[in-house]
Amino acid sequence: MTKTVKVGMLGLGTVGGGVFKVLRNFDNIEIKKIAVNNINKDRNIEGLNKDILTANPDEIVNDKEISILIEVIGGIEPAYSLIKQAIANKKHIITANKELIAKYGKELFNLAKENNVVILYEAAVAGGIPIIMPIKTSLAANKFSNVAAILNGTTNYILTKMEKDGADFASVLKEAQELGYAEADPTNDVQGYDAAYKICILATIIFNKRCDVNKIFIEGIDKITPVDIEYARDLGYKIKLIALARESKGGKIDVRVHPMLVPLSQPLAHINNVLNAVVLNGHPVGQVMFSGPGAGEFPTASSVVGDILSLVQEIKYTDYPLPMMRCRHDETAVHLDIEETTNKYYISVNTANTPGVLGELGQIFGRNNINLTSIIQKGILEDGSARIVLLTEDALEKNVNKAINEITKLGVTKKILNILRVMD
Amino acid sequence: MTKTVKVGMLGLGTVGGGVFKVLRNFDNIEIKKIAVNNINKDRNIEGLNKDILTANPDEIVNDKEISILIEVIGGIEPAYSLIKQAIANKKHIITANKELIAKYGKELFNLAKENNVVILYEAAVAGGIPIIMPIKTSLAANKFSNVAAILNGTTNYILTKMEKDGADFASVLKEAQELGYAEADPTNDVQGYDAAYKICILATIIFNKRCDVNKIFIEGIDKITPVDIEYARDLGYKIKLIALARESKGGKIDVRVHPMLVPLSQPLAHINNVLNAVVLNGHPVGQVMFSGPGAGEFPTASSVVGDILSLVQEIKYTDYPLPMMRCRHDETAVHLDIEETTNKYYISVNTANTPGVLGELGQIFGRNNINLTSIIQKGILEDGSARIVLLTEDALEKNVNKAINEITKLGVTKKILNILRVMD
Repeated sequence: MTKTVKVGMLGLGTVGGGVFKVLRNFDNIEIKKIAVNNINKDRNIEGLNKDILTANPDEIVNDKEISILIEVIGGIEPAYSLIKQAIANKKHIITANKELIAKYGKELFNLAKENNVVILYEAAVAGGIPIIMPIKTSLAANKFSNVAAILNGTTNYILTKMEKDGADFASVLKEAQELGYAEADPTNDVQGYDAAYKICILATIIFNKRCDVNKIFIEGIDKITPVDIEYARDLGYKIKLIALARESKGGKIDVRVHPMLVPLSQPLAHINNVLNAVVLNGHPVGQVMFSGPGAGEFPTASSVVGDILSLVQEIKYTDYPLPMMRCRHDETAVHLDIEETTNKYYISVNTANTPGVLGELGQIFGRNNINLTSIIQKGILEDGSARIVLLTEDALEKNVNKAINEITKLGVTKKILNILRVMD
Repeated sequence: MTKTVKVGMLGLGTVGGGVFKVLRNFDNIEIKKIAVNNINKDRNIEGLNKDILTANPDEIVNDKEISILIEVIGGIEPAYSLIKQAIANKKHIITANKELIAKYGKELFNLAKENNVVILYEAAVAGGIPIIMPIKTSLAANKFSNVAAILNGTTNYILTKMEKDGADFASVLKEAQELGYAEADPTNDVQGYDAAYKICILATIIFNKRCDVNKIFIEGIDKITPVDIEYARDLGYKIKLIALARESKGGKIDVRVHPMLVPLSQPLAHINNVLNAVVLNGHPVGQVMFSGPGAGEFPTASSVVGDILSLVQEIKYTDYPLPMMRCRHDETAVHLDIEETTNKYYISVNTANTPGVLGELGQIFGRNNINLTSIIQKGILEDGSARIVLLTEDALEKNVNKAINEITKLGVTKKILNILRVMD
């Protein structure tokens, strides 16, 4: 008979409930204890024996019989302290906590190494989509030049809905909140922090150097208007919140999260609603894409339980499990400043409707070494002014900022409406 | 210093050359010997020392220093005999040989189990796309209900090109042969055998029962005409060669390879040219898709070397490596006969252009319990006859065959032009 492995769990919310329901099907794994805030809460989880619930997580992290700790509470504390204590007690860790791994990965992986245990976190990036394990194993022969991804379902839902209905950001956000697709305080999703934690984790793995989450350039989607989406469509693009990581000249890494115009020829343009997707470019593989559900009770449970099963199989046979899955990135990455990055740009300007405006704009871009590929002026706004939309060729961000600064000072300029980066 | 693992390789063609070039970057792995047909052939591979070439593969499979055998010759013999000998000599096997694993997987995996070695074959399905490792590890918690995939780049290229240019099968095939995208004898690709080997391997893994390659229903793409592609487009579909595996009522498995009309709302409709893609549906994950290059020197090498690196890491620490990757499907699957499957159908019929034809067809379908969703008759053919295209709702294949038989016997019927299955 197979030896039963005993696991303990911190948290029994949406993800924890999913993990419990899935793990119940595997006879060789016993959930010995689950730490929750409120033992008496009615949880409506079939098969849950309330005797295994505890309000004291120390009972789990210090339990000698428990060999694997599953952390699904999220956030930094108390997760961080409890995981450190569990590692010191030689327990393997499986977590869905992107914020914790992004911010404290270095400390935790070092501690895990000292204690000869592993930390697995497939569920922390892109929910149910297998991505960390494939990069570390099947794709291990590759040197990756860049990854581009849609890693936040809430913002992808909002942008998809804005595009479909021609509605503005605020009203779609409100609707998404009512449907439960966006949280009451949507800052974490809408401003790009959630995607930043995830791309930080991916960048660290693909470049084998620790990405600093505080150095990731972040812009949210709240500045996107239905007019931008319409112009983008006319030009052959969709607007998506893209998490990017590239290796640039000199070995610096360029990691950021911001809205982008994505050409319809790119697979990411067709990832809609709450779906996530990760596109990896590397040698020898070329380009591969993984897509699927990036969040939710069961997709996240799929990744958490996948990690548990992989680990349980290994610890039957070896004291040094999953060597390929261990973190070996002691080196700290140097980040490229956003000002030094090269991008194509979409620039929307509101100007007076007078002759010579296009000429003045053209001169400014020329002086700043920026070539334009499209200039669109459609009709006249209600107040008699003009909206001019420009697309640039590749240009240095700092040159674009200089040009925008000059345009702002032009007498004919009423307002810079939007500046967005454009994917190749 | 890391211990060097010695590997031997059978074959140095396109894939073998790629593996050699990629593996050279890893110091801890030494390619000790490579068996080739012609030692003196000029190979133009940088860094290749001809002293490691041998015309005698026994030198490799019997070499005690070699712990991993990489087989990249393809086909059944001599690969099968050499691999069996190597396993008996306690060597781990890494292969890209889909035909061998599909036809002789049972024998080989049993032999590997007896000898406590592993057989890894990530490259055998979908080239550079990680699919086998993710199913066995990150997705291990799932019960899969079905997989639908584009697994042959040659046919996907031909269908994409036929669609784009409105050209017929024969002329596009000729062009593909000239470009090197199709082989001189294209039977293996065009008739669906290549895709059948691959879906056989996938079905075995996802259902955990051995799929019998001889019981896979196979239809090729040579019967697809530009007119079918045009009608499909008008109806909102693309035509793709789809490899399918489903579990049906009673636990039988339904595995097949045939052209299908794929709705534009499905991600597989947008996989073009030589790309491959695999869509998995399971619980708890839901639907995930993996796409990328399904063949070629470097993508295939990515998977072969990924397997090697995963295995090399493990055998440093354990005598029972990669337990999750081992095959544990002793059970043989029972296949559902194609006659018993339920599908939607696209049926194209050439009839006399007389009143009442649609009524006669409608009566036949009704008698056979088949509901129609669309009937299209556009214009008249050059000879004055009519082309009628019908789409059905879900229907039993044997009922459709009965209906077609009755239609053939109708006085007004000139020819059944095509019958294709339609994806939901």
